[in-house]
Amino acid sequence: MRAMLKGIAASDGIVCGQVYRLVEPNLTVQQRAITNLDYELNRFHQALEAAVSDVETIKTRATKNLGTDSAQVFSAHIAMLQDPELITAVETQIRQRKINAEAALAAVARTYETSFQGLTDNPYMQERITDLHDVTKRVTAHLLQVALPDLALVNHPVIVVTHDLIPSDTVSVNPRYILGFVTDLGGRTSHSSILARSMAIPAVVGTQHATDQLTNGEMVILNGTRGQVMVAPDDDELASAQAAMHERAANLKRLSKLRHHGTVSKDGVGVTLAANIGTANDLPSVLQNGAEAVGLMRTEFLYMDADQLPSEDEQFAIYKQVLTAMAPRPVVIRTLDIGGDKPLPYLKQKPETNPFMGARAIRQSLTHQQIFRSQLRALLRASAFGNLRIMFPMIATLDEFRQAKAIYDDERSKLTVAQVPLGSIKIGMMVEVPAAALLADRFAQEVDFMSIGTNDLIGYTMAADRTNQDVAYLYQPYHPAILRLVNRVIAAAHGAGIPVAMCGEMAGDPIAVPLLLGMGLDEFSMGAGSILKTRRLIGQLSAHDLQALVETTLNQASTSQEVITMVQAAVPGILT
Amino acid sequence: MRAMLKGIAASDGIVCGQVYRLVEPNLTVQQRAITNLDYELNRFHQALEAAVSDVETIKTRATKNLGTDSAQVFSAHIAMLQDPELITAVETQIRQRKINAEAALAAVARTYETSFQGLTDNPYMQERITDLHDVTKRVTAHLLQVALPDLALVNHPVIVVTHDLIPSDTVSVNPRYILGFVTDLGGRTSHSSILARSMAIPAVVGTQHATDQLTNGEMVILNGTRGQVMVAPDDDELASAQAAMHERAANLKRLSKLRHHGTVSKDGVGVTLAANIGTANDLPSVLQNGAEAVGLMRTEFLYMDADQLPSEDEQFAIYKQVLTAMAPRPVVIRTLDIGGDKPLPYLKQKPETNPFMGARAIRQSLTHQQIFRSQLRALLRASAFGNLRIMFPMIATLDEFRQAKAIYDDERSKLTVAQVPLGSIKIGMMVEVPAAALLADRFAQEVDFMSIGTNDLIGYTMAADRTNQDVAYLYQPYHPAILRLVNRVIAAAHGAGIPVAMCGEMAGDPIAVPLLLGMGLDEFSMGAGSILKTRRLIGQLSAHDLQALVETTLNQASTSQEVITMVQAAVPGILT
Repeated sequence: MRAMLKGIAASDGIVCGQVYRLVEPNLTVQQRAITNLDYELNRFHQALEAAVSDVETIKTRATKNLGTDSAQVFSAHIAMLQDPELITAVETQIRQRKINAEAALAAVARTYETSFQGLTDNPYMQERITDLHDVTKRVTAHLLQVALPDLALVNHPVIVVTHDLIPSDTVSVNPRYILGFVTDLGGRTSHSSILARSMAIPAVVGTQHATDQLTNGEMVILNGTRGQVMVAPDDDELASAQAAMHERAANLKRLSKLRHHGTVSKDGVGVTLAANIGTANDLPSVLQNGAEAVGLMRTEFLYMDADQLPSEDEQFAIYKQVLTAMAPRPVVIRTLDIGGDKPLPYLKQKPETNPFMGARAIRQSLTHQQIFRSQLRALLRASAFGNLRIMFPMIATLDEFRQAKAIYDDERSKLTVAQVPLGSIKIGMMVEVPAAALLADRFAQEVDFMSIGTNDLIGYTMAADRTNQDVAYLYQPYHPAILRLVNRVIAAAHGAGIPVAMCGEMAGDPIAVPLLLGMGLDEFSMGAGSILKTRRLIGQLSAHDLQALVETTLNQASTSQEVITMVQAAVPGILT
Repeated sequence: MRAMLKGIAASDGIVCGQVYRLVEPNLTVQQRAITNLDYELNRFHQALEAAVSDVETIKTRATKNLGTDSAQVFSAHIAMLQDPELITAVETQIRQRKINAEAALAAVARTYETSFQGLTDNPYMQERITDLHDVTKRVTAHLLQVALPDLALVNHPVIVVTHDLIPSDTVSVNPRYILGFVTDLGGRTSHSSILARSMAIPAVVGTQHATDQLTNGEMVILNGTRGQVMVAPDDDELASAQAAMHERAANLKRLSKLRHHGTVSKDGVGVTLAANIGTANDLPSVLQNGAEAVGLMRTEFLYMDADQLPSEDEQFAIYKQVLTAMAPRPVVIRTLDIGGDKPLPYLKQKPETNPFMGARAIRQSLTHQQIFRSQLRALLRASAFGNLRIMFPMIATLDEFRQAKAIYDDERSKLTVAQVPLGSIKIGMMVEVPAAALLADRFAQEVDFMSIGTNDLIGYTMAADRTNQDVAYLYQPYHPAILRLVNRVIAAAHGAGIPVAMCGEMAGDPIAVPLLLGMGLDEFSMGAGSILKTRRLIGQLSAHDLQALVETTLNQASTSQEVITMVQAAVPGILT
């Protein structure tokens, strides 16, 4: 091999394949004097046609994955690429100034932009500026003969190498063509990793330099279990990777026999294993991996992948699709968790000094009620098609839950009056703010169910931003303080006779699972790829015996390391 | 009156006085052709002299308040103002280009800056650029006949009106001349408010527009108890303000009789009332208000008000001053809490997405050990002069406390070997990260004392940045979740036989005090201005009777409002 890159093991699995660099190319344009006018005009038209063809392909895929409404932006791009006024303006520049097509296009784009600029308060014109940038970029790339990478254009299996994976990158992708992900940035709990696990695609994140060190088309072996990327492997290395892949496939095959089983501990305690999903794209993997429910459907991607608010009908269609596919299994849909690290470009949100502790999630929903009400109506209408549970994120006070519930009740009664058919719906809350965990007994009197969101709960409880490399070591799921909080929430829910789930990364963690089973957690919701392994693990554990382990960790452990040692002593071979 | 400005009541008291606007003036320079060379050269020299005189005044005050080392920067400014090379360069510009002095100075400053710019990695040159900016600004202000406000130049009593109060504004001030503060920004728990309370100076913050609406020299009545600023009052209004001031003075006089009393509840339970301080400047107010201890000395201002790290000797001198003044009463000194919202300009700290959840306080100290060790040595050496307790901030895990303690032990044994005289020192921790509060029983086994830092503890527990206006409503000290955490920490400390204090704003809050007394809190540390009122309040309360109130709030309250109602029912007239 030429080199071995090390990173963080983010999503299990071994794959071999060619590198596809998803890296923004350098599109700097130099102005040149030209002599052959016809040649230059011809270059321009060829680039325009190639750009239209790209956008058609992307549009087709987006329509398939996201529906017609989301694909509208691409129709706007095509219209702009075919706009006679724009084309004539560029041709005139080429003819009159005798300059190359890319410089002529840049000059025209600047003129357009200047004329738009007086209208910055007009959202329509803002969108046009964004469209103009996208379109100019694409044509320029063709003129410079530089590839403008886009996952929607990938038509054979590749390993995607990128700086950082963002949700919108993955939405228009055909999952069959993505063998794996390698990123420069990120940690085990970053969005890149969560996305990769929810798609059950092997991934290595946080390599720091992968985009610099790997070239397009180069062969690599990605080991998402060990966090390694082997570059340009030799035949022996390829053969041993193949062997590892076969072993893994055999293991998965054995695991897949558990697909249609329930999840029952050795001593007969049944729990629910559910999947976390981001889009309807994740459904095939959810069903293949034998999820008994969707324990968390995030709805941010619906809002983040568009350049305007999704309509009520658009949302309804997607919720209905997911509910129908899963019925009669329950689907927990979380209302919008925007703000924080997930701003919406078209909502003018103020920059915040500490967005994680700012106006996010339910705090935004209670302020921007029209957005919240539209989402609730879409959910209510979709409820007729399956088993829906609605969950409010970031609840810190009972006042917030009561307000959100009142708005829901209001929309519900309006739809009832209008004789819209509705299913039976349960209303619950995420427990991710420490205050809510500490007061879980009071909340449990008023909610139908709770789901512990450990990603944020751990962050706030340890006062550590997990996306900040300098303090990521403080993001400790096994810290005794976290275990005490989680245990408290489970006991409070059961005290009030309601079910309690966990939908953070911790729910699929092999060190945490024995503790959670011992505490009596009802539902474990995780990336689909972890479900079968967790089902097997739970089948090997006795819930009753683990209660003693729980007591010891809660009362005697002072550090995360002590907890790990205690779990390993109580459950030998837990990590094999 | 001409107008009434409304803001947030940040620090009690009523005062009348003239407005002093502490607002950065517009110092834009226009280039003009001049005809009278001698006149222009003369203008320049007069401005230089006036600038030197300003800086001398500021230097004298800084030396008095902060010691010789901190005043060195002003000596550098004077040297630059008298630098023949700089003066000749400006004179040459005036003579040769026949331009006005301010334009000539600006041109020369630009040339200097350009020549420095290649050396941006050299910290010495960086300081020279900062000095050059300061000096140019001051001379330009004199040339433009624009006042460059500086609290060190104030020589008569005024009401300071500013956008936002920052610690460095208050350091070089003579407190006798500051009647009150009015700010545009901030809330009750912002730094402006905390500073004003620690100096026992009336303040109204968050008025939004005070700097726009008030002019220099205008008479106002500031009511820091009601959060109002009356602009240009008429005679009747002045008379009634005088009456209110008299009544308040009489009340304070009655209160002042409690100055030399201990703090004992009606049923004979003794507690300690301590003061929070930021600098040695706060000592007179601490002693006047009968504090029994310093419960929190912040050390950030030592680091933030200079343009380089304070030396070990500089720190030693200030710690010694405070310990000596308070002896034999205890002084809790908190090690550096930088990072977060308090970056140090001369430490190149990376910008963080969520600085409150980033590399701050003990996390920084464990990384930048040379800074931490220098502070510990200064503290150890000062310990011989009083009753010192060292407190580590932002402890989240026992590992962190153990590491910090090991570094302290290491420095201690080195000084012991060197036969430096040391006093007896206790080592404790701030409990401000929820994880530490939840695990207080384990921490209590290893620390000498605990102090609950409610400002941050509430922020993390509610996942709300108190400095963010949009979520400030979630910063709820009486939230039952907060009370449960506080009660848990107090019980854990007492279980291990160690004392527990509270040094957040909550400790002086009349609604919280009965609850804290009922929970058994040992020490209440607050802005000096709240001590006597709190002593009177505690004298009216029966600690034993309040235990029932504590039980009810912990077990039955679901919201902050319910807690307030319960306290008001149990302690009628609490807010009068």
